Amino acid sequence: MPAKDKTLEDLFLHTLKDVLYAEKQILKALPRMAKAADSDELKQAFEQHREETQGQIERLEEVFKMLGKPARGVQCEAINGIIEESKEVMEDFADSEALDAGILAAAQAVEHYEITRYGSLKTWAEELGMRDATKLLDQTLQEEKKTDQLLTKLAEARVNTKAA
Amino acid sequence: MPAKDKTLEDLFLHTLKDVLYAEKQILKALPRMAKAADSDELKQAFEQHREETQGQIERLEEVFKMLGKPARGVQCEAINGIIEESKEVMEDFADSEALDAGILAAAQAVEHYEITRYGSLKTWAEELGMRDATKLLDQTLQEEKKTDQLLTKLAEARVNTKAA
Repeated sequence: MPAKDKTLEDLFLHTLKDVLYAEKQILKALPRMAKAADSDELKQAFEQHREETQGQIERLEEVFKMLGKPARGVQCEAINGIIEESKEVMEDFADSEALDAGILAAAQAVEHYEITRYGSLKTWAEELGMRDATKLLDQTLQEEKKTDQLLTKLAEARVNTKAA
Repeated sequence: MPAKDKTLEDLFLHTLKDVLYAEKQILKALPRMAKAADSDELKQAFEQHREETQGQIERLEEVFKMLGKPARGVQCEAINGIIEESKEVMEDFADSEALDAGILAAAQAVEHYEITRYGSLKTWAEELGMRDATKLLDQTLQEEKKTDQLLTKLAEARVNTKAA
C-alpha cells in the first residue's frame, strides 16, 4: 500500500506489533534483571512484573483478535536499544555499590517506553471507536504506571537506606 | 577499573555521557521532524523544542564542568532506536492521514526517554550532594515534562479536529 493511503488503523496495527515484540523482549529480560539485582525487594519486583507482562501479552493478543489480525510482532529498535543498555549497566557495574541504582534506572526506562506506547495506543483505539480495546489497553497502561511508581519508591528507599 | 569498584559517581558520569549523546541526536532529529510534520502547530512545537534542547545541552556541559570532566558523549543505543523508529514512521506514513499521529507518538517516546533519564540523574546528583547540578538537571526535567504535556495536548487537539 502506498504510504499516503495508510490510515490510523494501519498505524494502530503497526504500533500494536511493535509493542507485542517489545513485551516479549521484556519477558526475556526480566529474569536476567531479577538475577542480577542485589536487593531482594528489587528481585521480587521484577519477578512480579514478569507475571504481569505475561498478562499484558495476552491482552495485546485479544486486541489483535478484535482487529481480525494475527498476533505477530515486528522488530522494535527502541526496546532493543533500551534492553541493550540495561545489559551494559549490569555488566559494567556488576557487584558494585551502584549496581541496583543502575538496574532500577534501566527498568524505569523500559517502563517509560511502555507508558508512552500504551498511551498512544489507547488514544488511537478511542479514536477508532474500539471501546473494548481501549479498556484493555488502559488496564495495561495503569499497571505500567504502578510499576514505575514502585520502581521510584525502591529508588528512593535505596537512597534513604544508604543515608541511614 | 574493575566493575565491582565502581561508584554512584561513575554511574552518574556514564549516564550524563549517554544523555549528552542523546540530546545531540535529538538536536539533529528535530528539524527533520518539523519538516515532515503536517500541521503548523506541530512544526512550531518542534522548532521551539530545538532551541530548548540547545539550552539543555549547555546545562549538561555545566554539570560536566562541576565534575571536572570533559563533556563527551557516549553511544546511546536507546535513543538511536527511538529515533530510528521515528524515521520509519515518517517514511511509512508520509502524506497519509495518520502521519502527524505517528510523529507525535514518536516525539513522545523521545520525551519519555529524556524524562526517565533526567529523573535518575537528578536523584543521583542529590544523593551525591551536588546541589547546583541537581538544580540544573531539575530545570531540564521540568522542561521535558512540559514538552510532553504540550505534545499530549496536540495529540488530543488532532483527535478533536478530526471529530469536528
